[in-house]
Amino acid sequence: MRVHVVLTPAELGADLHSRTAVVIDVFRAATTVVTALAGGCRAIVPALTPEEARKRARAFPRGEVLLAGERGGDPIDGFDLGNSPLEYTAQRVAGKIVVLTTTNGTKALLRAASAAATAVAGLVNVKAVAQWAQDQARDLTLACAGEAGEVSLEDTVCAGLIIDALAGAGALELSDTAAMARGAARDYRHRLDDLRSESHWGRHLLARGRAEDLAACLAVDAWTAVPLFRNGRVAAGQP
Amino acid sequence: MRVHVVLTPAELGADLHSRTAVVIDVFRAATTVVTALAGGCRAIVPALTPEEARKRARAFPRGEVLLAGERGGDPIDGFDLGNSPLEYTAQRVAGKIVVLTTTNGTKALLRAASAAATAVAGLVNVKAVAQWAQDQARDLTLACAGEAGEVSLEDTVCAGLIIDALAGAGALELSDTAAMARGAARDYRHRLDDLRSESHWGRHLLARGRAEDLAACLAVDAWTAVPLFRNGRVAAGQP
Repeated sequence: MRVHVVLTPAELGADLHSRTAVVIDVFRAATTVVTALAGGCRAIVPALTPEEARKRARAFPRGEVLLAGERGGDPIDGFDLGNSPLEYTAQRVAGKIVVLTTTNGTKALLRAASAAATAVAGLVNVKAVAQWAQDQARDLTLACAGEAGEVSLEDTVCAGLIIDALAGAGALELSDTAAMARGAARDYRHRLDDLRSESHWGRHLLARGRAEDLAACLAVDAWTAVPLFRNGRVAAGQP
Repeated sequence: MRVHVVLTPAELGADLHSRTAVVIDVFRAATTVVTALAGGCRAIVPALTPEEARKRARAFPRGEVLLAGERGGDPIDGFDLGNSPLEYTAQRVAGKIVVLTTTNGTKALLRAASAAATAVAGLVNVKAVAQWAQDQARDLTLACAGEAGEVSLEDTVCAGLIIDALAGAGALELSDTAAMARGAARDYRHRLDDLRSESHWGRHLLARGRAEDLAACLAVDAWTAVPLFRNGRVAAGQP
């Protein structure tokens, strides 16, 4: 299996159709998506902008849809939910469609839509996603959402952890960025909490009082869910 | 000291004037430059293209200048030297000006020219460059030459080794890419020879029979030279 890591969404090419794609957004969209699905949310519909989110939400009956997302890490005026996984309780999201727009994660997801299969990953579901990607038996692109077009440490480390979790899968052919991500993961593996203070976005969220969100995002392999992106919606994959 | 790693030359911004820059091209330009200076070459003049190299060479008396470089890892027709460090013997280069054009390294160098001070680094002079950068007492940008616009594993690992060699220098503030490079370096530190087979460019050069060049490039800290780029020329820095 050939494995490539794309460090920022802009590098995601049009050559994904024969590959498996995994979109990684550790702080916080992936955790939010996983938590929402675990809470019984029917599907997450990613949207590039708040305007597009409002438009997409209008396609659903009013009582069945929630507008959600962030810009710069903060909730969006008039939206039902922000991007804090803690908000996504079963009470709020069970049976609902969540239309979600985030600064980085939803952009990466929409760019990865052309892959043969597309999943969402964070530290919360490394093992589950690695197993799923292995079962797909295609070459694999791990797409880091990054931060505002820049490389983000936590997403790269997560990509590296997924690669190391694949390592039982037979021969892997790693691209340079994949080998680099795996190296970084091996350095951070036993001190993942350091990602809070050693990543730009972690520091940003900490400064905004989001320590509990970060703790949720750092709960490694807390979930076995593999959110799959198909036909414009993210929903729980078959176990 | 704030430390940032730029993974490809295109990301090198115009904000370098108050920073120290180190241009990293492990396979092979940095080793070539260091070897040439050690062999008594007066200066290396980087040029973006073979045409520009020919033009620059004409500014020097014919017997005092050598045309050098590669494209795709191979020598350029009609040039005096390729980009193999082994060619740069004292016999060939002592007292000469070398006009050098390489696919990645010279491009990165020319983009880094606006920094307050600019040095060239490879695995061959990690410690020397780290000490020099520390003495500069400015924020530091480590600029990986990469490969044809893509991230290269060996340059990133070298950047990480330089950061770890700075670590005695007091508090470091690392960007996300700097933390990532340091992580990758810690994984490869004790198995640097693996960079030959685990990097794209290493495999490319091996396939072209350049194993001896790679061995020269992997001679960690074999040199104490710090090539400095000033006024369009790379020359040996003061010890």
